[in-house]
Amino acid sequence: MLDIEIAQENEKTQMRPITEIGAQIGLSADDLENYGKSKAKLSFDALNRLRDQPFGKLVLVTSINPTPAGEGKSTVTVGLGDALNQRHQKAVIALREPSLGPVMGMKGGATGGGFAQVVPMEDINLHFTGDMHALTSAVDTLAALIDNHLQQGNELNIDPRRILWHRALDINDRALRNMVIGMGGPLSGVPREASFDITVASELMAVLCLAEDLADLKQRISRIVIGYTYAKEPVTVEQLQVTGAITMLLRDAIKPNLVQTLEHTPALIHGGPFANIAHGCNSVLATRSALQLGDIAVTEAGFGADLGGEKFLDIKTPVLKKTPDTIVLVATVRALKYNGGMALKDLTTESLDHLQQGFANLKRHIENMQQYHVPVVVAINRFTSDTDAEVAYLVDACQQLGVTAVPTTVWGDGGRGGLDLADAVLEALKQPSNFTPLYDVNQDVKTKIQTIVTKIYGGADVQYDAKALQSLKLIEQNGWDKLPICMAKTQYSLSDDPKQLGAPTGFTVHVRDITPKLGAGFLVVMTGNVLTMPGLPKHPAALDMDVTADGVISGLF
Amino acid sequence: MLDIEIAQENEKTQMRPITEIGAQIGLSADDLENYGKSKAKLSFDALNRLRDQPFGKLVLVTSINPTPAGEGKSTVTVGLGDALNQRHQKAVIALREPSLGPVMGMKGGATGGGFAQVVPMEDINLHFTGDMHALTSAVDTLAALIDNHLQQGNELNIDPRRILWHRALDINDRALRNMVIGMGGPLSGVPREASFDITVASELMAVLCLAEDLADLKQRISRIVIGYTYAKEPVTVEQLQVTGAITMLLRDAIKPNLVQTLEHTPALIHGGPFANIAHGCNSVLATRSALQLGDIAVTEAGFGADLGGEKFLDIKTPVLKKTPDTIVLVATVRALKYNGGMALKDLTTESLDHLQQGFANLKRHIENMQQYHVPVVVAINRFTSDTDAEVAYLVDACQQLGVTAVPTTVWGDGGRGGLDLADAVLEALKQPSNFTPLYDVNQDVKTKIQTIVTKIYGGADVQYDAKALQSLKLIEQNGWDKLPICMAKTQYSLSDDPKQLGAPTGFTVHVRDITPKLGAGFLVVMTGNVLTMPGLPKHPAALDMDVTADGVISGLF
Repeated sequence: MLDIEIAQENEKTQMRPITEIGAQIGLSADDLENYGKSKAKLSFDALNRLRDQPFGKLVLVTSINPTPAGEGKSTVTVGLGDALNQRHQKAVIALREPSLGPVMGMKGGATGGGFAQVVPMEDINLHFTGDMHALTSAVDTLAALIDNHLQQGNELNIDPRRILWHRALDINDRALRNMVIGMGGPLSGVPREASFDITVASELMAVLCLAEDLADLKQRISRIVIGYTYAKEPVTVEQLQVTGAITMLLRDAIKPNLVQTLEHTPALIHGGPFANIAHGCNSVLATRSALQLGDIAVTEAGFGADLGGEKFLDIKTPVLKKTPDTIVLVATVRALKYNGGMALKDLTTESLDHLQQGFANLKRHIENMQQYHVPVVVAINRFTSDTDAEVAYLVDACQQLGVTAVPTTVWGDGGRGGLDLADAVLEALKQPSNFTPLYDVNQDVKTKIQTIVTKIYGGADVQYDAKALQSLKLIEQNGWDKLPICMAKTQYSLSDDPKQLGAPTGFTVHVRDITPKLGAGFLVVMTGNVLTMPGLPKHPAALDMDVTADGVISGLF
Repeated sequence: MLDIEIAQENEKTQMRPITEIGAQIGLSADDLENYGKSKAKLSFDALNRLRDQPFGKLVLVTSINPTPAGEGKSTVTVGLGDALNQRHQKAVIALREPSLGPVMGMKGGATGGGFAQVVPMEDINLHFTGDMHALTSAVDTLAALIDNHLQQGNELNIDPRRILWHRALDINDRALRNMVIGMGGPLSGVPREASFDITVASELMAVLCLAEDLADLKQRISRIVIGYTYAKEPVTVEQLQVTGAITMLLRDAIKPNLVQTLEHTPALIHGGPFANIAHGCNSVLATRSALQLGDIAVTEAGFGADLGGEKFLDIKTPVLKKTPDTIVLVATVRALKYNGGMALKDLTTESLDHLQQGFANLKRHIENMQQYHVPVVVAINRFTSDTDAEVAYLVDACQQLGVTAVPTTVWGDGGRGGLDLADAVLEALKQPSNFTPLYDVNQDVKTKIQTIVTKIYGGADVQYDAKALQSLKLIEQNGWDKLPICMAKTQYSLSDDPKQLGAPTGFTVHVRDITPKLGAGFLVVMTGNVLTMPGLPKHPAALDMDVTADGVISGLF
């Protein structure tokens, strides 16, 4: 049975009015702005009332490096939330919003799977409450205002060759990576090189996810550097005098969205930067609300612990003003065997050898997370083809690192399949969490990058392209070097080479460029060949999608 | 007092829950999909139930050529609906959705003004229920799939130089009119010339507005010609195998949106093509629903009667399967004096001479509409600076053409200021309407264009560029010539030269190109310098917009 079929079947019979879900966590009907019967945004009044409420416990779910075999991190996050509720804990889930680009391409849903899903699945995966579209609109309105400034006399003396602000679409469209715009004569703009990113890679997405409230959003937007003058002085959104307009376009997008799991656990789904090209975490406002509305907030960071995990801990945590009490690392036997060199088609065959080889990847992530001095639990997302011997091997190997590993079957069983994991997490939550950041933000940029490369990736050196060094010089001249680092790196490997699986060492990370994101408050370090605009595959998922005359969707997953 | 201040003040105290507004016209809570407390979409169940319901009377509101002086067509439409309700008629209003491009640029709201507004004003003018964003997303997803087809081997043999499908953004951005995309080497697409239109100009907007239901939407999308092969054979969306995916993205956008006026008259706001570069009418589904839910539906067509009016009557009416029972032509003393050659700054001074000169414009539009054999009423949208003598002159001049002209003061007085107009409309509705189309769609393309130019614009000749003739040849070869004509022409003049005010004659209309829009079911004829992507002015409205920490918006208008 497909995820969409399970969702459609259960939504019909099981989904509760969103006002009931809100009531479970103390939200009145007035606290919610309904979008249909099963989605709602938290009102500003509700957010203001929550502002000074105490926090519950925080569980961060992250994973090993993703493989084509699938890890199911969102599925485990949802299943863990459901299991905690079955254990009579007041758990609230906080997830990211899916991006349409990969939905149309090949990624599949970001709403969990099987019986561990958030619903309404179709809505969440398509337009949801319009946050992604509002962001796209704001990103491109800002770009239009920049190009209009050039066209109308360029009072600020902006150098068209040094504009950092890219346009965005929530689409995988490689043809928009590099272009020349403004052609066609003096009435149609100033010709210049330009580029579109996927919306989730835009700084504005990061800004929305890191803003503490509307006032902070506005402050952050005003600080965004859109490019440089001919004299290489930075130009900000504030100087363009459009802070108000851009903030206005995001007035509703900043409000977290409330939905439910198939088992009626409340879930806040809000913000969705990718973890390879951005910081990979859902919004601070949603996570904070989950911490205030629940006794335990279960949240997820994108891709592996080297990307979303590290960025959650070093970028989001300082803004959130709450550090995780437990980190759950998701792994599958299949993915570890793939990491151990087994071919995709063979993964259903037992192989303790490949598992042992691939365990190096999990081991590295466990040790990485332990550096932060937060209790770690491993969740083994069990597939039917996993043998008992393989699972036993994994549990034992983790045990030897002092970490509890727990098999779960939440895809097939929902929360019931995650009860052991819930128990292990509850046990871990009793242990002390003495969070220690990986690096000191006051160190210089190269030192911070080297720390991440050495301590998280396991690499030896960092090599900088000429362009990166030029950018770094500008960053230092402007005094922006005391910001945290947001690495843009392939998700498939701990290194910057997607083909190096397992736990590579001794490699050199290649830095192509460094971009200041003053609104987000970090520096984006571009490594390897990672792209801020994905492409579509030869057979995009879109080709298999359909909708009936009655509005029933198929082929979404 | 600004429109936004009146709206904000009254929304707080007066706005009713949208379920109450629905109940007024027989819609249950289950018929509505709420978007917040004051917006809702009509569900498919509701639309299915309405399918075979009888129609009420149809009032079409159109106007003279717009001027910088302002005509207030939307304001009069809203005020007329309110006034009809004060006269105990069950009136339902059907309007277009505003586009963010002009909102950020200079146009101002599309939600009426003063005490004749639809609310919530801010929401409707910004993201509303996401229809415009869903369209943008669908347009650009289709474009990405086309470029991906080129990239992945180009099985259909599409000629990259002959792609008709443009990307779109709901933004005024002249720098995106002409560009070269796909640069940067073999991994980043196939280089080709490309273009963005404003979303409201996209064929997909017209398709959404003309679709009778989801099945028809799908049919129309499948027929869209996205370009030609190297052998000049047309390539359709169906051949790309993405009809299902694109339709799926519009599954919710096709449902009409229900809001209310400040006086609680139900208003369906849905679809928003511009009338200069597209067909300029709100959706068939919304107008039809208004006709079925009310005894009188009051709807509006974009810009002047030469554009939105003509297109409503010759393009929308055959699909709607309902012809107007009365046409209301909106004029202002100011705009007519401007048409008579008076400078903008002098318009507050009485001048019967300029008014008499400018009346030629109104006279032409009256006579044009009378050609359709539908009763015509003129609404004089009165400004405080209009003198009694000026208004009396206008009433008298219309009387001599056999047409009732009625002053209204709905901006300042709401429905109360439109009671005389409502009475005149109710009187007109008692007269027979013997609708006669302007041209026979089975005539050849040049004949149909000449008919519009002669009978509506008052022009003498049509001149075709070489490109237009080439396109026409392809259209005829493919048998697409029996379709209605959608003229793309400046809104400021009856001619294709925006500077020719009043009622010019003897001019030649220049046709630059003709584009087949098989999904919409018409041929777009590009004249003069009309552009499908507007630009921003030197001081865009965006520069004066703001939002407070509590979410209160200012500077929107």
